Amino acid sequence: MPNSHAPKRSVFFISDGTGITAETLGQSLLTQFEGLPTKATRMPFVDSVEKARQCVLRINAAHADDGLRPIVFNTLVSTETSQVIHAADALVLDLFQTFINPLEKELGLKSTHTIGRSHSATQNQQEYANRIEAINFSLSHDDGQTDKNLAEADVILIGVSRSGKTPTSLYLALTFGLRCANYPLIPEDFERDTLPATLAPYKDKLFGLTIQPERLAEIRNERRPNSKYSALENCRYEVHAAESLMRREGIRWLSSTTKSIEEIATTVMQEIKLERRVF
Amino acid sequence: MPNSHAPKRSVFFISDGTGITAETLGQSLLTQFEGLPTKATRMPFVDSVEKARQCVLRINAAHADDGLRPIVFNTLVSTETSQVIHAADALVLDLFQTFINPLEKELGLKSTHTIGRSHSATQNQQEYANRIEAINFSLSHDDGQTDKNLAEADVILIGVSRSGKTPTSLYLALTFGLRCANYPLIPEDFERDTLPATLAPYKDKLFGLTIQPERLAEIRNERRPNSKYSALENCRYEVHAAESLMRREGIRWLSSTTKSIEEIATTVMQEIKLERRVF
Repeated sequence: MPNSHAPKRSVFFISDGTGITAETLGQSLLTQFEGLPTKATRMPFVDSVEKARQCVLRINAAHADDGLRPIVFNTLVSTETSQVIHAADALVLDLFQTFINPLEKELGLKSTHTIGRSHSATQNQQEYANRIEAINFSLSHDDGQTDKNLAEADVILIGVSRSGKTPTSLYLALTFGLRCANYPLIPEDFERDTLPATLAPYKDKLFGLTIQPERLAEIRNERRPNSKYSALENCRYEVHAAESLMRREGIRWLSSTTKSIEEIATTVMQEIKLERRVF
Repeated sequence: MPNSHAPKRSVFFISDGTGITAETLGQSLLTQFEGLPTKATRMPFVDSVEKARQCVLRINAAHADDGLRPIVFNTLVSTETSQVIHAADALVLDLFQTFINPLEKELGLKSTHTIGRSHSATQNQQEYANRIEAINFSLSHDDGQTDKNLAEADVILIGVSRSGKTPTSLYLALTFGLRCANYPLIPEDFERDTLPATLAPYKDKLFGLTIQPERLAEIRNERRPNSKYSALENCRYEVHAAESLMRREGIRWLSSTTKSIEEIATTVMQEIKLERRVF
């Protein structure tokens, strides 16, 4: 067991862009060392030697404070600024440069060493417009607000209230530029025992989310405590009715109970065979 | 200039989780080779030797079809499945394993080799709840819909209509678990020439987005062509008035014109000194 009084190891994510890639991969690596106490700092937009020197001062100060050598996840593209970082009193891991050399050899091309190419709006104006369009589409088609332009949807999520449709829709739009509508399945649908008529023509775009009734009751209770809406018995009824409906209509679905938004979104894309529209 | 008739190089992103990290870093590396024609495939949830073997079959088939050796960005954590991938007839780059060894040495710990730790809901139930809470907060506080619970906001974005507030709010909520409200600045605010009274108590949480009037007119024209709303003259007036108001009130702001959602979100976090709430 790790000692909870142990000093925390300082971790830095350094990038000439947003640092989101460095942070995501770096944090993912650190989860391999369970219970390791860390203090993480993202250092974005490090696009000059002067800024790199300031990073080094902070890293070295952390070492002095903690008495532990910091860990630096470095995605700087420029060889010059990267060299400055390597002078820090830390373990510096090059998440980017490490792979440029083998790629250059394989492709028979020299890399451009252009900074800030990832997560940069200037890279492709059209892609950016598509992304904003997808967000607007998903927002206006959240929670069955409108039936307009459903033919333009890449995917239509269905499921009972609070099964994870809205976060998944927004994630698909923001991250992948996909136009995602979502429709709640409500008691009227269960009584009629068929899909809402507006959705019937788009069966190949439908994907269902379900959830454990116990978890659903917990989530709904936070929103409307002690209501019929959040009662376990009602949650059991709704989930059972929704799953029966989806099964009978041959709609693909998954249980969101133990899945993250990223996992749900990735599974939806696999099943509906959707490609991302933005990078 | 690259030859536009050249066959496209197949690229694969392989992961035991969603593959989003592999894809983000891999695409970022490929942008260093400008104009390189590629065909990208994300292969998520590769969590068994059998699935790894199926990947290898697809990779080898791509090689046979293209006549070019595919590039594989591999983030498999398991040594066993990773070895299977390395038998593929491709350049396999280990975005994950490469750094485990130096980390083990530095930390004096063995990695757990637990798969799917990144982007996994089971990692931290509380973090996940915070994230959903942030999304709900940001949705209900989009476009000045309500003044309720503003004290709970981590940040409040202001700016003229279509300056990028909504996508930035949703991104901050989804990716970082931050509660982000946003308020449009409208002609009444400019006539009164002060901040809306409801926002005045939260000045330290305010951040402004502005945009080039020419770009704003373009964006608004797609939405409401040939209206006063989208006329260049009106856009110039609104942007000028909004910038004057923010300058006088001492509110930090940036121009979203050439920035991606990730760049805007990262800058907002730097300026307001916000730490991410989810990983």
